[in-house]
Amino acid sequence: RTNQQRLWDSLMEMGEIGGTEKGGCCRLALTDLDKQGRDLFVRWCEEAGCTITVDRMGNIFARRAGQDDSLPPVVMGSHLDTQPTGGKFDGVYGVLAGLEVIRTLNDHGIETRAPIEASVWTNEEGSRFPPAMVSSGVFAGAFDLEYGLSRADLDGKTMGEELARIGYAGSAEVGGRPFKAFFEAHIEQGPILEAEGKRIGVVTDAQGQRWYEITLTGQESHAGPTPMPTRRDALVGAARIVDLVNRIGMEHQPNACATVGLMQVFPNSRNVIPGQVFFTVDFRHPDAEVLARMDQALQEGARRIVEDQRLEMDFEQIWYSPPVPFDRDCVASVRQATESLGLSHREMVSGAGHDACYISRVAPTSMIFVPCEDGISHNEAERAAPADLAAGCDVLFKAVLERAND
Amino acid sequence: RTNQQRLWDSLMEMGEIGGTEKGGCCRLALTDLDKQGRDLFVRWCEEAGCTITVDRMGNIFARRAGQDDSLPPVVMGSHLDTQPTGGKFDGVYGVLAGLEVIRTLNDHGIETRAPIEASVWTNEEGSRFPPAMVSSGVFAGAFDLEYGLSRADLDGKTMGEELARIGYAGSAEVGGRPFKAFFEAHIEQGPILEAEGKRIGVVTDAQGQRWYEITLTGQESHAGPTPMPTRRDALVGAARIVDLVNRIGMEHQPNACATVGLMQVFPNSRNVIPGQVFFTVDFRHPDAEVLARMDQALQEGARRIVEDQRLEMDFEQIWYSPPVPFDRDCVASVRQATESLGLSHREMVSGAGHDACYISRVAPTSMIFVPCEDGISHNEAERAAPADLAAGCDVLFKAVLERAND
Ligand SMILES: NC(=O)NCCC(=O)O
Ligand SMILES: NC(=O)NCCC(=O)O
Repeated sequence: RTNQQRLWDSLMEMGEIGGTEKGGCCRLALTDLDKQGRDLFVRWCEEAGCTITVDRMGNIFARRAGQDDSLPPVVMGSHLDTQPTGGKFDGVYGVLAGLEVIRTLNDHGIETRAPIEASVWTNEEGSRFPPAMVSSGVFAGAFDLEYGLSRADLDGKTMGEELARIGYAGSAEVGGRPFKAFFEAHIEQGPILEAEGKRIGVVTDAQGQRWYEITLTGQESHAGPTPMPTRRDALVGAARIVDLVNRIGMEHQPNACATVGLMQVFPNSRNVIPGQVFFTVDFRHPDAEVLARMDQALQEGARRIVEDQRLEMDFEQIWYSPPVPFDRDCVASVRQATESLGLSHREMVSGAGHDACYISRVAPTSMIFVPCEDGISHNEAERAAPADLAAGCDVLFKAVLERAND
Repeated sequence: RTNQQRLWDSLMEMGEIGGTEKGGCCRLALTDLDKQGRDLFVRWCEEAGCTITVDRMGNIFARRAGQDDSLPPVVMGSHLDTQPTGGKFDGVYGVLAGLEVIRTLNDHGIETRAPIEASVWTNEEGSRFPPAMVSSGVFAGAFDLEYGLSRADLDGKTMGEELARIGYAGSAEVGGRPFKAFFEAHIEQGPILEAEGKRIGVVTDAQGQRWYEITLTGQESHAGPTPMPTRRDALVGAARIVDLVNRIGMEHQPNACATVGLMQVFPNSRNVIPGQVFFTVDFRHPDAEVLARMDQALQEGARRIVEDQRLEMDFEQIWYSPPVPFDRDCVASVRQATESLGLSHREMVSGAGHDACYISRVAPTSMIFVPCEDGISHNEAERAAPADLAAGCDVLFKAVLERAND
């Protein structure tokens, strides 16, 4: 068994870096706070006897040697970056559960045949630098290195610049080496485990995602003397597309999700008809065909709205992450570990994207979910119970040990 | 006749302060650029032999003595602040037309019986510090001084602090002294004069306005694993209210205007369901009763939308400026001046609010409009023809001279 208290204390200590008044965490990718979080993780891993490698995307690998150190490692991990108003568990749990597995092996003096690594993937959230999971994506060959390093935030700062600034532009090549297996522990971020009173989610698949950026351009003009019938109000068009996105999500129930999370209005002045609006769309569905139908409905509906409002539209799908089936054997390892520990469980599909989604392209991969309160995440109120987190960590320990020794 | 070239050159020189690449102007109220614009105006007025007074709201009065300097002055003026993406004429024209009248009187050595003043009113736009026309409002007793000085921008900086910072927190009492008459020259900011080929708008009335601030609160949550039916998406609610506002405007044609100009989404992250949205509404109509019906439709419709989406709503009407009938005698002075100059003209209702609206509560007041290209303003592409601007200035000259000598 892993050490519940030590895991919890590490989560709380890490959560203080960027900790918010409401008990959440704001530690955006590649900020000074992200650097502090990385430094703490690296220190803990070195204290646990690990060797640290940082690659050119800033991904961190903390390696505990195996009896046969030439074997590919069994890798655990997730991310340390958070949403602007995020919680203390999303991502961080999967990183520190990996560290806790290594600490537990050390406690008991257990050697493994293959090496074991705890990993941190850069900018998983995609909040500061879209898209999400960009650095595990480069690792897995979904994106090339240049694409990864040139991702820019809304101020135009790139990941490459910011990695160099905080001292995490490593020298290791990104990817190109085999993993024996990859396991990511994570909070569910949805309401199912809690509602059904189950402790462990055995994750078989992850749903597909399409992300869009849309800019509508109309004509700025005075809110007073400009007659309604002649207006070209970019915000009226954007509002109707937000409504359309919501209706597309509702029409493809169950399972579809459709969200406009970000919107910027120009010039954003009370008595000026908005001349330009920039916003994003996030579509998800476990079935790629349904996702394609949602895409078509958005394109057609948006085009009708902008024609009606006499607006210009710049419409771009900036990211497509297809549905992911995880590795049958890794899923079986997680199920067996869960059963041997006598934990209640169910199979599930991940609603969120995870670094495991990309890593599954280059290594046998699966995930372990634990419940979170009210299914809430990407919210400062995100919470998970110490006993659930420890149970997920025990499952990770067992699955990793089995894989590293087989 | 006033000097067309001098007026134009002054407009262009002032327009360089905050001048934008697209040929517009960004000189928000009480910024460093606003200070530079004020300093230039004060210097020009002193060179024209005027005495400067600044009151506690930062309103500036440049006085040209009369033969009987104990008489109340005839006052001209408007504002020097602009929208974030504003033009070079809105407001500035009325200020510099006032200066041009004084310069022309000097050119010809004309003395007037009553003194004449050119004025600058602080923060007319209401873009940085809502509401609009706040300092002419304090002058006219529509707001008290404390209210005026405590208006805050989105960063929480108050007008009082910013006036002190740029050195325009004057010592004169705000208001409490009589004007013989007040005239404001302004670009029309709408399409009517241009469409009808008329040079001068004789402004008889200004329409009423209601400004609102609305905050919707739902629940931030992850855009992936959070099922659509359980969401409380503040942006979906806000989008439906934007659509409602637009429909209310369309349903009260002709004459109604309805605009959402400003919106802020929190936390504004692509893969987070928005937990809070703040936005503004601007309603206008020349008839107070119709404006009240629009208000009712908004309140009822918004309440239905937020109930449907299970959101909380903070709904506040932050400003009501009732329809304004201008002074019959002042309107007649403008009409006569226009006719005696042989200029084409029509009567009109102002769609925008103006400092003249508040000053009309404490002094006989009217306005002079000139055409602007395509009726566009609150836009960097705002443009007006030198000959039209000079024609309006000639009308101002005649009306002021008549009043100052009667
Ligand atoms: N796990 C998680 O919150 N990932 C962020 C990427 C996504 O939006 O799915
Ligand atoms: N003239 C002008 O643009 N005034 C700003 C106040 C308003 O929105 O009417």
